[in-house]
Amino acid sequence: MNFASDNASGASDKVMAALAAANSGAAMPYGADRWTAQAEKALCDVFERDCAVFLVPTGTAANALALACLTPPWGAVFCHEHSHVMGDECGAPEFHTGGAKLVGLSGGGGKITAAVFAEALRAFPRGLVKQVQPSALTITQATESGTLYSLAEIAGLSGAAHDAGLGVHMDGARFANALAALGASPAEMSWKAGIDVLSFGASKNGTFCCEAVIFFDKARAADFAFRRKRAGHTLSKGRLLGAQALAYLDGGHWLDLARAANASAARLASGLAAIPGTRLPWPCEANEVFAILPRRTADALRAAGASFYDWGTRGLTAKDALKSDEVLLRLVASFATSGAEVDLFLATARNAAARK
Amino acid sequence: MNFASDNASGASDKVMAALAAANSGAAMPYGADRWTAQAEKALCDVFERDCAVFLVPTGTAANALALACLTPPWGAVFCHEHSHVMGDECGAPEFHTGGAKLVGLSGGGGKITAAVFAEALRAFPRGLVKQVQPSALTITQATESGTLYSLAEIAGLSGAAHDAGLGVHMDGARFANALAALGASPAEMSWKAGIDVLSFGASKNGTFCCEAVIFFDKARAADFAFRRKRAGHTLSKGRLLGAQALAYLDGGHWLDLARAANASAARLASGLAAIPGTRLPWPCEANEVFAILPRRTADALRAAGASFYDWGTRGLTAKDALKSDEVLLRLVASFATSGAEVDLFLATARNAAARK
Amino acid sequence: MNFASDNASGASDKVMAALAAANSGAAMPYGADRWTAQAEKALCDVFERDCAVFLVPTGTAANALALACLTPPWGAVFCHEHSHVMGDECGAPEFHTGGAKLVGLSGGGGKITAAVFAEALRAFPRGLVKQVQPSALTITQATESGTLYSLAEIAGLSGAAHDAGLGVHMDGARFANALAALGASPAEMSWKAGIDVLSFGASKNGTFCCEAVIFFDKARAADFAFRRKRAGHTLSKGRLLGAQALAYLDGGHWLDLARAANASAARLASGLAAIPGTRLPWPCEANEVFAILPRRTADALRAAGASFYDWGTRGLTAKDALKSDEVLLRLVASFATSGAEVDLFLATARNAAARK
Amino acid sequence: MNFASDNASGASDKVMAALAAANSGAAMPYGADRWTAQAEKALCDVFERDCAVFLVPTGTAANALALACLTPPWGAVFCHEHSHVMGDECGAPEFHTGGAKLVGLSGGGGKITAAVFAEALRAFPRGLVKQVQPSALTITQATESGTLYSLAEIAGLSGAAHDAGLGVHMDGARFANALAALGASPAEMSWKAGIDVLSFGASKNGTFCCEAVIFFDKARAADFAFRRKRAGHTLSKGRLLGAQALAYLDGGHWLDLARAANASAARLASGLAAIPGTRLPWPCEANEVFAILPRRTADALRAAGASFYDWGTRGLTAKDALKSDEVLLRLVASFATSGAEVDLFLATARNAAARK
Repeated sequence: MNFASDNASGASDKVMAALAAANSGAAMPYGADRWTAQAEKALCDVFERDCAVFLVPTGTAANALALACLTPPWGAVFCHEHSHVMGDECGAPEFHTGGAKLVGLSGGGGKITAAVFAEALRAFPRGLVKQVQPSALTITQATESGTLYSLAEIAGLSGAAHDAGLGVHMDGARFANALAALGASPAEMSWKAGIDVLSFGASKNGTFCCEAVIFFDKARAADFAFRRKRAGHTLSKGRLLGAQALAYLDGGHWLDLARAANASAARLASGLAAIPGTRLPWPCEANEVFAILPRRTADALRAAGASFYDWGTRGLTAKDALKSDEVLLRLVASFATSGAEVDLFLATARNAAARK
Repeated sequence: MNFASDNASGASDKVMAALAAANSGAAMPYGADRWTAQAEKALCDVFERDCAVFLVPTGTAANALALACLTPPWGAVFCHEHSHVMGDECGAPEFHTGGAKLVGLSGGGGKITAAVFAEALRAFPRGLVKQVQPSALTITQATESGTLYSLAEIAGLSGAAHDAGLGVHMDGARFANALAALGASPAEMSWKAGIDVLSFGASKNGTFCCEAVIFFDKARAADFAFRRKRAGHTLSKGRLLGAQALAYLDGGHWLDLARAANASAARLASGLAAIPGTRLPWPCEANEVFAILPRRTADALRAAGASFYDWGTRGLTAKDALKSDEVLLRLVASFATSGAEVDLFLATARNAAARK
Repeated sequence: MNFASDNASGASDKVMAALAAANSGAAMPYGADRWTAQAEKALCDVFERDCAVFLVPTGTAANALALACLTPPWGAVFCHEHSHVMGDECGAPEFHTGGAKLVGLSGGGGKITAAVFAEALRAFPRGLVKQVQPSALTITQATESGTLYSLAEIAGLSGAAHDAGLGVHMDGARFANALAALGASPAEMSWKAGIDVLSFGASKNGTFCCEAVIFFDKARAADFAFRRKRAGHTLSKGRLLGAQALAYLDGGHWLDLARAANASAARLASGLAAIPGTRLPWPCEANEVFAILPRRTADALRAAGASFYDWGTRGLTAKDALKSDEVLLRLVASFATSGAEVDLFLATARNAAARK
Repeated sequence: MNFASDNASGASDKVMAALAAANSGAAMPYGADRWTAQAEKALCDVFERDCAVFLVPTGTAANALALACLTPPWGAVFCHEHSHVMGDECGAPEFHTGGAKLVGLSGGGGKITAAVFAEALRAFPRGLVKQVQPSALTITQATESGTLYSLAEIAGLSGAAHDAGLGVHMDGARFANALAALGASPAEMSWKAGIDVLSFGASKNGTFCCEAVIFFDKARAADFAFRRKRAGHTLSKGRLLGAQALAYLDGGHWLDLARAANASAARLASGLAAIPGTRLPWPCEANEVFAILPRRTADALRAAGASFYDWGTRGLTAKDALKSDEVLLRLVASFATSGAEVDLFLATARNAAARK
């Protein structure tokens, strides 16, 4: 019953097999191999556009290197106050950008609103030398609260950012989960909605260590290869990344994996919502469930072997305030989560609630 | 006949199998898994000492992050003028150290001499504020010219560095090859000879993407976890690294791999040396052969499908100066190099030489 | 009627005369002159302690270089959300620290409270690698809202910071004004209250371009000379700084200047408070007055030649919320502000208010 | 007899008087004052071109900030191996550029030759990701060896740099001295010879703390104001810089000062050259004299109160190699050097030489 993180799973069997298959024989190093070339091509196909694609081994590298191409060191990068780039990467964006300032915006359920973003922009007048300059907006899809921006919301934020001269980045650590949930096309959820650069996540959803940074405007990518090399993120045996990405995309495998994870999360969410004394502060829209329940129940679940994180109060608004004996839990399903795990978790929670 | 790079090979079968085996089930992310813990323990055992061990995915990351723990941004890091950190990492050390200055030292066959190092130290007086301050020495074993520092030479340079208050780093991208050649113990070729921090290479010698940074003085490692995270080099599915390292070390597998590569290189070297008109500017001491031969021969080899790099004049001293129709080639053998490949290469070279 | 900034005044006559006097003859460059040595000594005397003292030409340099000695690049520096380091230095702290994260804390009247600071500390657990690490607290005295921390408040915040392992910096851009107002000794308002490093401001209060960074714990200052040089803040003709600082301190000149500025501000504040329709959201405690008054009055003042800044809503709490036709003005008095200027300003404001 | 540095002199009387005159009354801070505006205009007039001009307080700031506008962090900046940016600024260029690599080129008498520069360019192929990318050439006029590049030499190097896509910077710490010696116009010695950005030195030649960075191609200057602010080099009382620059340029004052310094140096050089056992390794072309003489003579000069630096062997070629009892001295004349000082120095040297 590991609901702590979708990073707790390994690679999918298909990805693992592809890795083994790519292992034999010689290939030119540092990404000059045919797997990498094919993976870059496959991603362009998926996004229905000629893109600049770069494979990297971690999501933190993807985000920080992508942002570094959107902001000068004296730029302001607007993000949600609870976003991964703001709080979970030990300052990686600041490091890779040469010291840009991340400006955290508030918003319920992990989402930035148009109004909050507009107000933030007004606080950083263009050309006022004593202040850092607005340079980029980054949004997370699905968000850290497991919610989704609609296509219209993405387009609205992107449009406002572009109007103010900012570039727009999407942290798509759970891009596949969001896409499967929205039923949109990759193009619709990215460049057609105004995204300039995408961190295309894959590690949480079935690869071992493979993410892609995708520039829809290739002109913005001019520096990326140098930044990646200099950061130490150009793998010598590049075929390792290429082979993972190829298998991940092949035949819609990635969306199958995401749908499985989303279904497990949905089953978990509806089961929890039906237990008296348990409530969901916001809907489960992808593969994460956030549930408020008695601390006693959480203890019983842990005692039964379940793992998950206590989420503090992040993302809660006043109407969802915790009572003194309640906790907010984050429960993450991955492609490898089994129905049996979900059912056992729910039964344990129900028992604890009934025991009173 | 790929002699271009030991990075052209994949992982060894044993490493690949271990990776597949580690893939099933859930494991805590970001290195909090049992494979990583066991790998760290195994490396301590190999080095006969309680060390601070950190796994990272690339050699560039290993080197740059290690150096960042040895130098302030205003430090001078002494290295060979043809070293990988100086010329092949797109400024990664400068980036990760916050702008330290790499000072390239000359020396035949890729080796820094005690005299040259002593002179360099004199050029950077301690405490003279207008100059960067001597902070670290980094040496490469085996060197970029395929030669080896003897244990006494390592101890001599380390001692001089320590006397001047510098930390000492070894870029061990080919540590196993050097170790197998010298017949020394890992401890003897590292901390017993004065090395403070080691980039323990494994990717060139049989892993897919796994290197280790090993601090023999654990106090120097206090910042490393933060630097690694911030750089984006903490893999979410950390067991990937742990499993590779474990299999690599298990039962002396790493040294078997290195011995195979060294033997192929030795066979290549002695074969080439016996061909009229071909000479080796310095001995083949690990898994790389540097050969001076007629351009015509190099062309014939390429035409026959061999791949390798033209090495320019790097490392050559006056007595080995190239004639106008000669080239210096670098030929690298890996664990996967076959005797047949070597023999075909030699036969081709002999034929070209005979044809005149 | 320049109330825009205390930077609008030149140097005091005494400082200017000292500069001219120091100009003749030869002196060793880069701070190896007798004026600099005497100034460093004089500051130690003023603070009743053997300190490490460094003169620099700007306040931004003083703050950013000081903070760089208190935080690693992956540190969190806690400051008020409206502080100069946060919003008015174009990211200088991020630049000089190598990308540390400034965490802005809210608080009425420009002051950080113990409760807000304690909550912020809890959000950055020590040793949690994915988050930046708490490293420093910086407070401003007098604050950007013209208010003062009491000695007890400084000691309380410093104590909490030290308990959590943080260093404490004071941005003393208006140190003299605060000191004169509190009637404390320099030692009492700094190291005796727990300050580790002080930006000792002088430029706003009578020098031309001279600030001092003072380390009360000399061990923290080990890197400063290198950081200053590398940043380009070591003046070649260092006597320029030394001579300014010496004249500024001589015979209590600096406190005379501050008392004059404070008196002008007090006269302005009490005059404004007496005008119907005008109110002060917080008391004038040093040399700055913040007044809420009808926009119409502000327009009349500008028309009469007065200069000052519209302060938006910074520092206002709910009880002081602006009505739609009101503005919050910042009015700064310097040592050079004359009584006539203040009286003319007040008369103009009174007339505008009466005209209705 | 201070021949240690032209930084040992104060400001010229005219500059000092202008500073005092600019001190009274109020002026808008941070460079929004009339002195600064007039100084910027005056420099455009001097250079016969509409330039982007920025005043800064130190030469190190000027150089490092200028280079930061010419190179990305992964750039190679070519400079003379003995240049100030390479060896005397504690890594300021590395800091301000975000870690670019300075590549030191050899050359007798402090000058880079076309051949050496061409060879260096070949070592950094454009687009080879593992290497830093050629981005800028910086030359010093007058050089650190007191020699001059002719206009043709400047144009030749600039042309080669431009052909390879590099920007060209001139460190003009002694621009006035060089200009006076060559008898060229400011435009001829800068943009007409291909210079893109100039550090226009003034502090060594009569100001207190004022340098200018001049962009002849204004497009390159887009970031400068932010970089300067962020570095802490935007003086609050900006009129201080403006007033110095205005007085320095007024009526050709700067060239009068430079001619005086050059004349003193010439007198010193010809006097020394006439002393048996003393020789000049290269001609005195501006305001610095480099002389090889017996250590005994140097000791006698120091005993008589003269100050100067022992220059090691920097810039010496084989034909000028020092004998075991000889030293190479650097002797710098400034505008304030008197004929009496020169004569006393020469007499002392002659006596020491005669004494044998």
